[in-house]
Amino acid sequence: MKTMEKKAISALIEYDDASPEVRSVYDDIMATRKTDSINNFWKALANHPATLRRTWESIKEIMAPGALDPLTKELIYLAVSATNQCQYCMASHSASARKKGMSEEMLGELLAVVGMANETNALAAGYRVEIDEQFRQ
Amino acid sequence: MKTMEKKAISALIEYDDASPEVRSVYDDIMATRKTDSINNFWKALANHPATLRRTWESIKEIMAPGALDPLTKELIYLAVSATNQCQYCMASHSASARKKGMSEEMLGELLAVVGMANETNALAAGYRVEIDEQFRQ
Amino acid sequence: MKTMEKKAISALIEYDDASPEVRSVYDDIMATRKTDSINNFWKALANHPATLRRTWESIKEIMAPGALDPLTKELIYLAVSATNQCQYCMASHSASARKKGMSEEMLGELLAVVGMANETNALAAGYRVEIDEQFRQ
Amino acid sequence: MKTMEKKAISALIEYDDASPEVRSVYDDIMATRKTDSINNFWKALANHPATLRRTWESIKEIMAPGALDPLTKELIYLAVSATNQCQYCMASHSASARKKGMSEEMLGELLAVVGMANETNALAAGYRVEIDEQFRQ
Amino acid sequence: MKTMEKKAISALIEYDDASPEVRSVYDDIMATRKTDSINNFWKALANHPATLRRTWESIKEIMAPGALDPLTKELIYLAVSATNQCQYCMASHSASARKKGMSEEMLGELLAVVGMANETNALAAGYRVEIDEQFRQ
Amino acid sequence: MKTMEKKAISALIEYDDASPEVRSVYDDIMATRKTDSINNFWKALANHPATLRRTWESIKEIMAPGALDPLTKELIYLAVSATNQCQYCMASHSASARKKGMSEEMLGELLAVVGMANETNALAAGYRVEIDEQFRQ
Repeated sequence: MKTMEKKAISALIEYDDASPEVRSVYDDIMATRKTDSINNFWKALANHPATLRRTWESIKEIMAPGALDPLTKELIYLAVSATNQCQYCMASHSASARKKGMSEEMLGELLAVVGMANETNALAAGYRVEIDEQFRQ
Repeated sequence: MKTMEKKAISALIEYDDASPEVRSVYDDIMATRKTDSINNFWKALANHPATLRRTWESIKEIMAPGALDPLTKELIYLAVSATNQCQYCMASHSASARKKGMSEEMLGELLAVVGMANETNALAAGYRVEIDEQFRQ
Repeated sequence: MKTMEKKAISALIEYDDASPEVRSVYDDIMATRKTDSINNFWKALANHPATLRRTWESIKEIMAPGALDPLTKELIYLAVSATNQCQYCMASHSASARKKGMSEEMLGELLAVVGMANETNALAAGYRVEIDEQFRQ
Repeated sequence: MKTMEKKAISALIEYDDASPEVRSVYDDIMATRKTDSINNFWKALANHPATLRRTWESIKEIMAPGALDPLTKELIYLAVSATNQCQYCMASHSASARKKGMSEEMLGELLAVVGMANETNALAAGYRVEIDEQFRQ
Repeated sequence: MKTMEKKAISALIEYDDASPEVRSVYDDIMATRKTDSINNFWKALANHPATLRRTWESIKEIMAPGALDPLTKELIYLAVSATNQCQYCMASHSASARKKGMSEEMLGELLAVVGMANETNALAAGYRVEIDEQFRQ
Repeated sequence: MKTMEKKAISALIEYDDASPEVRSVYDDIMATRKTDSINNFWKALANHPATLRRTWESIKEIMAPGALDPLTKELIYLAVSATNQCQYCMASHSASARKKGMSEEMLGELLAVVGMANETNALAAGYRVEIDEQFRQ
């Protein structure tokens, strides 16, 4: 424990070493996702159980079917993660998106839009484009 | 012309002042989008006609229906623009998305996912989470 | 003074209200840039004189002619500022760049590269492209 | 093919496995760049041939000599890529920039400007600096 | 309602127009913060009551005193907001931080660190610095 | 030397190979930090001695005790680095922060705030929230 404090990187908390509070979140993740393994992301968050619980409950609520279907939500997640250069998030969420039905063609079109949006975002800033009157209200 | 060089901000090129090359892009934008006005974004890009033409042709190709429908593509555009804090792009593309059928509820769910993805992107970086073996390949 | 503490926005420190330490930086800025006015950026930094001095001295050193000429350095500044959506920085540095000789055509080509780089940065992250062996060393 | 759909990471499409459409882009890349190898970036984009073709044609047009020379354009590319923390892009474009004549001293000055611009972008936002009257038009 | 769908910008939901669900969140915000007004941020989130409730509950939990005191947490909030160029967030959170005791000197030192961190983040990416062996574990 | 020019990655300059100018900075780093090793970050910056010297002197000044204590400053550094997805900076500065007294609980609370700030920054942009009158001045 004392040596862990000195380490630069956070430990991954395995199920067997987890507190009851953490285990109950892990159990809900595995039940909801119909899987028997826990991703490293959650094992890292388990270092701060309040963050683990709150993040899981928020994601579970946000990613559930609603006006947007779960696959569309995963595509949006990937769009943000590619924009932010988050390598872990691209890795884990492209796997989730594929599980929910994302084809190679859909990924290709998604990334084409993401690339173009990043390009035009920079162009709008670079040309200092003023917002059109009709978009102000 | 000479005074424009001294200005800090780029001019907006109106249709009447545009070269034939720029006008033909404007014409295609208005025909494709079934509108008779041109957004400030395009009027600013018209300062560099090659960028105007290339950006328009790319967007026209990318945003067309494919494996993803045009509304989903607009949602992805908004996800990137909110992440990048691009105020112009949020303004113009939330208008386009509404035209293509985005309801308030869909916008709400979109932004909930965008907010959560930005949060977990930062958490993944902050905890320095290593990519799980099963996501490496 | 006490009311300033309550304001959400930082005051702009005018020359006449400035301490001798701040004035000496203002004097050096005006002498170096051959102008008799001070931009709002410096007037805001003057709220923390150590930051004002250090930032000015760093910029003066960095933007001086070297292996890269001052105009190229301004173009690089603009590339970063457009990428970061920094509206103030685009406004002030596009004025500086124009003073140092940036034409509309150069601005157009600069922004075309900036847009494309932001697009391909997102594509590289989105496709999770592995670094080629020959670029590793 | 079916197993590829299940993988979290995109395949790299080698020349021998590529469709005629992809091969013709690869051929043009190798002819234009006077090389006989294709970077992983293009091999990844080849998963979506329309993106491969459009991205290559755009880059070829944008990076060609114009009001800015090709080396200056590579420096701008690097400025954006360092700002975005795009590790792949820094790796591949610092190699291209060196091929086009970037010395260690030029890279050093480039990164000094990039670092300073990122610093002052954050300071301008942090101090909420209002745009000076003379930069508004 | 129908006209709101057509607007590019989200409505701000005032207390008097709010549903009971939204009002109960507004009441809790005002009670917790010992104020009788609601910021525009919450009035905008009220367009999607689930996001309003979840975001408020998360912030209330996260910003409460813990191993870090509330002022330190506000400083961290400002550091992220300046980095992201979020103008709204800088405006609202610099007011909150001042209420919790942030002096001009503390803001100055905060922004000096934020500026420097953004600079060295770009330098680390630009020089492609490899992580030291002792920081890997 | 000549071959180094051809490499895509910058060399790390070891003490024994360093110029007197670089060595004197290394000596000051080791004396100030009471350590006998130099991190890769500084060894990479040593490729451009002016950047090495200026960056070190700036950091030494900025991170010194003031209105904010050194640990708070490290937390702010980490907040920026997680937001920017700077893996090197998270690695090196989480080690520094731990040395200065950051506990696992403090890191957990820090990252919870960082995550939430990144979320609400995106929400503020996404909902295009207008700055409240009382925050404008």
